[in-house]
Amino acid sequence: MTAIAEPDIAPVPQAAPLAVPEHEHEQKPRDILIICYSGDLEKTWAAMILASTSGAMAQPTKVFVTFWGLQTFVRDDVRITGENWMQKMMSFMQRPGISHRKLSKMNFLGMGPWMMRKLAKQYHVASPKELLEMAQALGVEFIPCQMTMDMFGIKREDLIEGMGEPVGAATYLSFVGEGAAPLFI
Amino acid sequence: MTAIAEPDIAPVPQAAPLAVPEHEHEQKPRDILIICYSGDLEKTWAAMILASTSGAMAQPTKVFVTFWGLQTFVRDDVRITGENWMQKMMSFMQRPGISHRKLSKMNFLGMGPWMMRKLAKQYHVASPKELLEMAQALGVEFIPCQMTMDMFGIKREDLIEGMGEPVGAATYLSFVGEGAAPLFI
Amino acid sequence: MTAIAEPDIAPVPQAAPLAVPEHEHEQKPRDILIICYSGDLEKTWAAMILASTSGAMAQPTKVFVTFWGLQTFVRDDVRITGENWMQKMMSFMQRPGISHRKLSKMNFLGMGPWMMRKLAKQYHVASPKELLEMAQALGVEFIPCQMTMDMFGIKREDLIEGMGEPVGAATYLSFVGEGAAPLFI
Repeated sequence: MTAIAEPDIAPVPQAAPLAVPEHEHEQKPRDILIICYSGDLEKTWAAMILASTSGAMAQPTKVFVTFWGLQTFVRDDVRITGENWMQKMMSFMQRPGISHRKLSKMNFLGMGPWMMRKLAKQYHVASPKELLEMAQALGVEFIPCQMTMDMFGIKREDLIEGMGEPVGAATYLSFVGEGAAPLFI
Repeated sequence: MTAIAEPDIAPVPQAAPLAVPEHEHEQKPRDILIICYSGDLEKTWAAMILASTSGAMAQPTKVFVTFWGLQTFVRDDVRITGENWMQKMMSFMQRPGISHRKLSKMNFLGMGPWMMRKLAKQYHVASPKELLEMAQALGVEFIPCQMTMDMFGIKREDLIEGMGEPVGAATYLSFVGEGAAPLFI
Repeated sequence: MTAIAEPDIAPVPQAAPLAVPEHEHEQKPRDILIICYSGDLEKTWAAMILASTSGAMAQPTKVFVTFWGLQTFVRDDVRITGENWMQKMMSFMQRPGISHRKLSKMNFLGMGPWMMRKLAKQYHVASPKELLEMAQALGVEFIPCQMTMDMFGIKREDLIEGMGEPVGAATYLSFVGEGAAPLFI
């Protein structure tokens, strides 16, 4: 993943175009805490761009993966997850894996996502999968939601490598309470 | 609602699996300020899990209820809200009440939400309605948006009991400005 | 835009109905940092209400405009954007401009948005376009995402007047890291 040039993920003009806020911030840089809630292609992309960029800026960054977002972190080669028929059916209806995300609209039998990925390649924007791997390499922690794993019957061996221990909402909220900036995506 | 065991809503492993952030947070725990914007079943669930867990952690927690989210807080037995035909029609098209939320996708004539509720019961996850009642019992404030009430023609007697006084965006933003952590769900 | 009375955008009761939080906030008011991510009518409305209210409260406010949200800030009279056929087709399928936003649901061939706008007018809620102009007049900065501009082939001359210089995710995250309160809408 080191082959991806940094400008591809976050093209920041050299001359910072924004005025420095008038009041001084005496705080140290805050932890970034992304809730990756949606399984849609475009929101997955947004979450991965923010996670990898934040990682590249050496900000402590955690991504809490919950609800539809957990399906994104199932390995691409796993087709059906779950133990009972309901769980299996849900994974069947929405194919898991970061390479199989769909747009929330304009799908048009797959043409929308196809155009999106083609445009991204043309403009040197890394794919969600590449950004995820980059983020992991940069030390971003991806933490699955225990409750979602239970409800969807997703096991740890279904998930991609390098995920953290599953936790619940209380752990997540304790980070917010301590000062991390939450982004619910 | 006291019958619901705490582990059901937020299964946190005993041994905290996450490293303590390196830098010390000298701040006191911050207020949590959830904007309950969506009326979808799954986002309602996420908001209620966070609200009730935050309440259980004795963090000052407010839920600002706006746009589609306000329909969730109409009493389940109220079928039609509004004064003019447009408002009535909108409530007719989207049945209000926390027990009548629908998934944002995979509805399949009601099968999706049915499976979701069945799986939740099987894995001892409390329903959105139970979590809402728990959150209220734990001191979480639910505050309706005045503008949404006006636009949809929803009156205070349409809403569930225990809701706070309606306020506007300025009140909400003043809490954020004072340091509360905002979660737009 | 000065003709719009302030109560229209944020009807706040005179007697603040919420208890002051017990612990004192020693911090100065924080910057508000809205990510305007969605192009849906109702989320655009929510973002513009928060932006204009925050501006009216003289809080330093920035709106980072990205993904579908960027289409909202294309000038209303621009019909097709982009250089290649894919970009043109995407703008064709989703008409850009703040006056052409659609609801995320209940569109019913345009009746939903029509009713919404009619109800808003009836209850003296300013339109998204009016709120945007008000926010700009109040000093709120609207900043386009460079990557989205590249991917969709949107040029600066396609955008409304008064937008800031395009920036990337790193600039956005640096504001969050410095203490601004992020709202991902």
